[in-house]
Amino acid sequence: MIRVGIVGASGYTALELIKLLLRHPQAEITRLTSRDESSPHLSAVHPSLRDRLDLHMSLFDVETFCADVDFAFSCLPHAASAEVVSQLCERGIRTVDFSADYRLDNVELFETVYGTRHPDPERVGSVAYGIPELFRDAIRKAHVVANPGCFPSSALLPLAPLMKAGMLCPAPVIVDSKTGISGAGRKSSLKFHFPECNESVAAYGVGTHRHMPEIDNLISRYSNVDCNVVFTPHLIPMDRGIHSTIYAQPARGTTVESLASELRQFYSDEPFIRITDQPPLTRNVSGTNYCDICVQSSRDQIVILSAIDNLIKGASGAAVQNFNVMNGFEETTALL
Amino acid sequence: MIRVGIVGASGYTALELIKLLLRHPQAEITRLTSRDESSPHLSAVHPSLRDRLDLHMSLFDVETFCADVDFAFSCLPHAASAEVVSQLCERGIRTVDFSADYRLDNVELFETVYGTRHPDPERVGSVAYGIPELFRDAIRKAHVVANPGCFPSSALLPLAPLMKAGMLCPAPVIVDSKTGISGAGRKSSLKFHFPECNESVAAYGVGTHRHMPEIDNLISRYSNVDCNVVFTPHLIPMDRGIHSTIYAQPARGTTVESLASELRQFYSDEPFIRITDQPPLTRNVSGTNYCDICVQSSRDQIVILSAIDNLIKGASGAAVQNFNVMNGFEETTALL
Amino acid sequence: MIRVGIVGASGYTALELIKLLLRHPQAEITRLTSRDESSPHLSAVHPSLRDRLDLHMSLFDVETFCADVDFAFSCLPHAASAEVVSQLCERGIRTVDFSADYRLDNVELFETVYGTRHPDPERVGSVAYGIPELFRDAIRKAHVVANPGCFPSSALLPLAPLMKAGMLCPAPVIVDSKTGISGAGRKSSLKFHFPECNESVAAYGVGTHRHMPEIDNLISRYSNVDCNVVFTPHLIPMDRGIHSTIYAQPARGTTVESLASELRQFYSDEPFIRITDQPPLTRNVSGTNYCDICVQSSRDQIVILSAIDNLIKGASGAAVQNFNVMNGFEETTALL
Amino acid sequence: MIRVGIVGASGYTALELIKLLLRHPQAEITRLTSRDESSPHLSAVHPSLRDRLDLHMSLFDVETFCADVDFAFSCLPHAASAEVVSQLCERGIRTVDFSADYRLDNVELFETVYGTRHPDPERVGSVAYGIPELFRDAIRKAHVVANPGCFPSSALLPLAPLMKAGMLCPAPVIVDSKTGISGAGRKSSLKFHFPECNESVAAYGVGTHRHMPEIDNLISRYSNVDCNVVFTPHLIPMDRGIHSTIYAQPARGTTVESLASELRQFYSDEPFIRITDQPPLTRNVSGTNYCDICVQSSRDQIVILSAIDNLIKGASGAAVQNFNVMNGFEETTALL
Repeated sequence: MIRVGIVGASGYTALELIKLLLRHPQAEITRLTSRDESSPHLSAVHPSLRDRLDLHMSLFDVETFCADVDFAFSCLPHAASAEVVSQLCERGIRTVDFSADYRLDNVELFETVYGTRHPDPERVGSVAYGIPELFRDAIRKAHVVANPGCFPSSALLPLAPLMKAGMLCPAPVIVDSKTGISGAGRKSSLKFHFPECNESVAAYGVGTHRHMPEIDNLISRYSNVDCNVVFTPHLIPMDRGIHSTIYAQPARGTTVESLASELRQFYSDEPFIRITDQPPLTRNVSGTNYCDICVQSSRDQIVILSAIDNLIKGASGAAVQNFNVMNGFEETTALL
Repeated sequence: MIRVGIVGASGYTALELIKLLLRHPQAEITRLTSRDESSPHLSAVHPSLRDRLDLHMSLFDVETFCADVDFAFSCLPHAASAEVVSQLCERGIRTVDFSADYRLDNVELFETVYGTRHPDPERVGSVAYGIPELFRDAIRKAHVVANPGCFPSSALLPLAPLMKAGMLCPAPVIVDSKTGISGAGRKSSLKFHFPECNESVAAYGVGTHRHMPEIDNLISRYSNVDCNVVFTPHLIPMDRGIHSTIYAQPARGTTVESLASELRQFYSDEPFIRITDQPPLTRNVSGTNYCDICVQSSRDQIVILSAIDNLIKGASGAAVQNFNVMNGFEETTALL
Repeated sequence: MIRVGIVGASGYTALELIKLLLRHPQAEITRLTSRDESSPHLSAVHPSLRDRLDLHMSLFDVETFCADVDFAFSCLPHAASAEVVSQLCERGIRTVDFSADYRLDNVELFETVYGTRHPDPERVGSVAYGIPELFRDAIRKAHVVANPGCFPSSALLPLAPLMKAGMLCPAPVIVDSKTGISGAGRKSSLKFHFPECNESVAAYGVGTHRHMPEIDNLISRYSNVDCNVVFTPHLIPMDRGIHSTIYAQPARGTTVESLASELRQFYSDEPFIRITDQPPLTRNVSGTNYCDICVQSSRDQIVILSAIDNLIKGASGAAVQNFNVMNGFEETTALL
Repeated sequence: MIRVGIVGASGYTALELIKLLLRHPQAEITRLTSRDESSPHLSAVHPSLRDRLDLHMSLFDVETFCADVDFAFSCLPHAASAEVVSQLCERGIRTVDFSADYRLDNVELFETVYGTRHPDPERVGSVAYGIPELFRDAIRKAHVVANPGCFPSSALLPLAPLMKAGMLCPAPVIVDSKTGISGAGRKSSLKFHFPECNESVAAYGVGTHRHMPEIDNLISRYSNVDCNVVFTPHLIPMDRGIHSTIYAQPARGTTVESLASELRQFYSDEPFIRITDQPPLTRNVSGTNYCDICVQSSRDQIVILSAIDNLIKGASGAAVQNFNVMNGFEETTALL
């Protein structure tokens, strides 16, 4: 039994993480932290967890935290997270970090994209990126795993192997993504006020979203291909789900069939990747750790459709999958 | 006062059309038809119109219909519509046709795309396409106006003038559209059953949607530019609205600013086109005849965002606007 | 042409009010105020109104305001509103007040329910309650009209005439209401954050909601019947609409048919009240000033179902209707 | 390992049942039937189950079915279900029946309410009603368990023990329920077409819903109290969840506190019943087998709020709970 602590447990990803871990036979949640000084009971913050886990959320203190846990998940925002993760590392606590702090392998790029100094620059570059389907070996032995961004997960799972196989032209690649509003986190603002975003669709962060360089950076690391993805996210009036529509030009000689076949083979042993014949619905992966992928074409463009649950395969499910890999557990534990 | 008849009045576009016409001081609805042999009262089919218009829906009979109307709107499906429209034309009734029958200027293309013989091939090619902002002169004197497709409206309003001005490369142009579910019409099916499409996003008709050749055909007719748009529609869990995200490469020397400026100038006198600085929300045009357009960029791509209400500017609002143009009324009548 | 000013124009009711008044041939909006010191342009606050009304929102100053307006709508919160309304009154500006300040005819009751001193207690009791179907004569000559609460509107329209006719037992009457989330106003909070209230239903304010004494007070004033309504509102994941399900016992000798017949007769000349045979859907009144009412029964209880758009008949539509009555305009102007 | 068969596996309750059973360590699904003669693969009917269970749906044939299963769930409609269940019983297959066929203990009442002859009248009256919290002993030894109706579950869990304790007056009791649209099943119709029921609320089945006599019948059987509940369901634009608002008069001497205390004590050992201090949200029980209950008051009425997931605690979760009880498994298996 592994004693697990979660740093920053008041948001949606932590809520999903707790739900998954409560089903995990080899994990016991022993510590939850938040920045709320009143140390609220978990059920006061997440009423859906009432009677399921009897813990209070305390302020983070590295000594008391490390005394009680064997493994940590950090759900803190970027920059804040690396400060905690570096302390946990020093005390030998393996960690899955939900923030963006260690996703890019380049401190300068991080500092440009996030507009802040990196609090733990030495570690950057040596941290495994947490998509087991692409980086399982590195994850297995990692001390810290950078849990992937939700949009990058939906884009990289189809793109990375196809780019590596040289079957798609590296430019222009367009990733047009649609996300449910839980992706915005659990902090209220007018933009996410129900009557403002219900019955509406809009793009945001055009040309500037931080997941754009993350996609490029990981395609490059995995496939050794330089790619300048054009990524546009859209807010959709639903809770959960990411649907990415990816437009790319096929390399000479490749067809829809050869691309689908490549993905089918590449993912043939993977329990969470399903290559479908029909366009995937986010509904079909909702609440699951699956990524459904379909390759189609439109005129001269390959159109790849992928669907994940942003909070599961795009966040907490991936985190538990990483936890399983890091600890040598059956990879699907608590995830089916 | 113009006496107006609506053929095929049981769907959503007819419902919106009736609501708009009830506000029109120069229009009086005198005839409604449907294929329901029981001649239901309008309010039995559209309960929201109860006490607003006291008419029954009768079967279409060209003689009785034409005796009572000066102007017709046909909301019939493709092929069925042209059969009726040709009869109305013979009797001198000017008509706005909501179907696709006269949108393309080429019978062969129509028959390929719609998989059926055209019932009125001689008229094809001489019918005005119903976007007044682009084809006002032709509409003014037209006997039949082909009301535009909802997706094409959202794509052509930004693309046509920019292509004509030579400011965008003709290929590849990607139109990634998101539509509310009223766009699927008012016929129930499992696909549009609430629990199947709520909380879900999916693409459909990838590479095969009939609005793809419509966009090309109209860009060519308006701009004299050959374009092979890659168009992908997505179903969004909301009632109304279309949001199109258009990716294109700028012609040499053009910038986001010059494109926005061109659109601002081109549409400076148009009451229903708003060029915005911020990404448009479909919510902001919901229930209106506006099209909001914003030009942005992402890396080397121009990203144009456009938003309309699919049932108004994408259908019935455009139809009333055409009606106004055809009859010399103030173009905004009943539309603000 | 009446020059109209709106105090507190940044919320949803003001937005709907402006949309309605823009269609009103005898009203011209000349002043908008908000508490935002930067004097934002209307379109910055309400992007859907872009290009429709070229006004800035200024801070409220009674002199400049009254110099420019003949008639005012106050959309301020309770207590704040009466302070402004009393100043407007002193300068002879007739006003429709959206707040609760003058709805109850009893200062003590107001102060108990709202937990604050009333800033203008002398006027309380002499202000007309703004449901024209019940209080038209008083509204016609009023200087101030208290625009009704949204829930009370949905309850009083069916209950008041039936209570006055002695056809329902005064106790117990249960009003179980369901409201769209725009009813919560335009201030973001976690409770109304999209992922918190989407896909969920919950009751709130059980036993304590301020509209409960308002319903009682108005039934008493209209019908001279003492009633202690049990009122429970519920939040529904939709933008707009209130549906009230009212349970009451029939007085001896009354039946569903006699109740429906009474309502039909009582409202026979009213343009906005529709007595339906089938349970009303909020969808059918959405965006309109209608109230649909249906009388049914279940065992020994009369079950009355009523549906309104909370922002129109429940707020801004009623306000415009009051404006029309107060100024002798056709009562349906701008409302059909 | 118990081999499980599901009769009528193409609907939403079967889908949820399969998902739950896939997590059950002592159950193996060996047979699925549907009336589709083409024997579709499970994943063709339920794409979300792709790669999770490799079975085709076959036509029901009692011999082949019984050869492969130790335990059955019938998800057939009423009347059709009893025909199958009686055959399964004859062959000694224990069954949980989702239909209404054995819920009432009175054939005549069944035939009146459902307007059809009962195909297996002898068994009626001796079948356990499947709410383990109320009828656990009978369920444990039952051959057939009548899985409860979704609305009755939400009403009986709070009402039955309080009625038995004599703490509420038996009349009038009003149950005003709100349900997500998955409760309507998986057959498309205009009423449940997305654009017809989204953004709308309406009551249905006022005075006639079949769950009304079911609630009465079970209160009587459990509590020995004659009750004539007035039950009104409402359709809510969401997928899942039932919220019931129950109005009753307290028996002399009882208070909100004593009622809440009674429920807390009665359910103190129950893993799936949570007595809350705050009004429950259906969101907090969504996807779970919990029933959250809160006792409040409004004037002289007790107002009890209860929330369940209609497909889990209101259907398939209850079925698995019954399966666990019948087989002596830990009652929470596969349900947390």
